Amino acid sequence: MYTMRAMRRLKPDPVPQTLIDQVLEAATMAPSGQNTQRWAFLVLTEPEGKTFFGHRYRDWIYRLMGDRVPNAEDNSAVARNIRAALYLADHMHEAPVIILAFGKRDWPFKVPQHERIGLAPPSAGSVYPAVQNLLLACRAVGLGASLTTVHQMFEEELYEHFDIPEDFGIVASIPIGYPQGRFGPVSRHPFRTKTHFERWGNQRSG
Amino acid sequence: MYTMRAMRRLKPDPVPQTLIDQVLEAATMAPSGQNTQRWAFLVLTEPEGKTFFGHRYRDWIYRLMGDRVPNAEDNSAVARNIRAALYLADHMHEAPVIILAFGKRDWPFKVPQHERIGLAPPSAGSVYPAVQNLLLACRAVGLGASLTTVHQMFEEELYEHFDIPEDFGIVASIPIGYPQGRFGPVSRHPFRTKTHFERWGNQRSG
Repeated sequence: MYTMRAMRRLKPDPVPQTLIDQVLEAATMAPSGQNTQRWAFLVLTEPEGKTFFGHRYRDWIYRLMGDRVPNAEDNSAVARNIRAALYLADHMHEAPVIILAFGKRDWPFKVPQHERIGLAPPSAGSVYPAVQNLLLACRAVGLGASLTTVHQMFEEELYEHFDIPEDFGIVASIPIGYPQGRFGPVSRHPFRTKTHFERWGNQRSG
Repeated sequence: MYTMRAMRRLKPDPVPQTLIDQVLEAATMAPSGQNTQRWAFLVLTEPEGKTFFGHRYRDWIYRLMGDRVPNAEDNSAVARNIRAALYLADHMHEAPVIILAFGKRDWPFKVPQHERIGLAPPSAGSVYPAVQNLLLACRAVGLGASLTTVHQMFEEELYEHFDIPEDFGIVASIPIGYPQGRFGPVSRHPFRTKTHFERWGNQRSG
C-alpha cells in the first residue's frame, strides 16, 4: 500500500498470463454488498482492441487538457504529473495489458448523466474494492498500473466495439505492465489531518 | 485479501490506539482522482457515540429485515448470514471501534436521492480504495472488521449528532475489534466466470 504508486510509464514487454490471472483472482477476493460479486473484467492484450481504446483515450486526454499542457522548461510537481499523464495517453495502446472493470447496474435510482442513455449507474462501491485489490496485487507481483476513468468520454463507442452489454457499467480502466521506473513511496497528507475523533472537528496533532 | 472475510462477531476488548492509527494511515495510502485525497474519517470509541450509532443501526436492520429473520432451526447459508448480520446489529454499540468513512461531495451532478437534501453524492470511487486498504490493514494486524452502509437510513440524524459538515458525504461504516472466530478463506465465484478476453462474452474455462 505504501509504495503502490500510479505507474504511468510502462515497458512494452509482454506480461505472462499467469500474472494476469493472479491479479484478476486477487480482485475477485474483494467484499461486495451481500457478497453479490457483481463485477466483471474485460482484459485487452491484442493490438486491435488496445489501439481502439488507446487512441480514443489519447485524443480525449489532449482535448480535456486543452492549454494546460506544460512548457518543456516547467519542472513543477503539477507539470511533472501532467507530463506523466500525457506519456500514459501517448503510449496507452502499447501497454501490454489493459483491464476494464465493470459493475452491474443494480442501483434503485437513476442519475441525470445516465438518464440520457436510460441507464442507472453501476454500484461503484461494490467494484472499487476489487479494483484496489487488483492494483495492490499488481504491485505485489512487480507490475506497474494506474487507475484511469477517461473511458467515460467515449463510453458509447467502447460498448459497441467490445459488445459490452448495457446492464454492466464501466468503472475503471487500468493499463498494466512492467514499470520503467521504481516503485517509490506514495505522497499523501498525514492521516491525522483526515481523521476526527468522536465528533467532527475534534482532531489530534500527535 | 484471501482471508479478509467480513468479521461480524467481535470481542468487546479495547483496541490499542496504535493499531487504530495504523489502519487509518494505511487507508490514506490509497489512490484517488488526481491524488486529491478528499476522504475523511470519524472514529468512535466512546460509549455515547457508539450507542447513538449502534442503536439506530440495530433498529433499522430489523426494520429492513422485516419477516426475513430466519427460524432457529434454519441452518442454510442465507440464514447463517442473516444471523451474523443481526448479531452485528445487536452488538454494534459494543464494537470497540466504529470508523465512518466520508468523501468530499465534489461531483458535478446531482442524483434524485440527494436532491431531496440538495446535495451531490460523494465520489465513492475516491473513497472505496481507502476503505479497502483500511479493511485489509485490519486483517493484517489481526483485527476483524466489516463494511456496512445502513447508516444511509439515518443519515440526517447522524450528521446532526456528530456535527458532520454537509460538504462531506458518508460512504461506509466499519465496526472493528478483535474477532471472536477465525479468519477463514473468503467464498467467491471463480475469477474466470467474471472475466472476458478481448471482447465481452469471450471467456475461458481454464
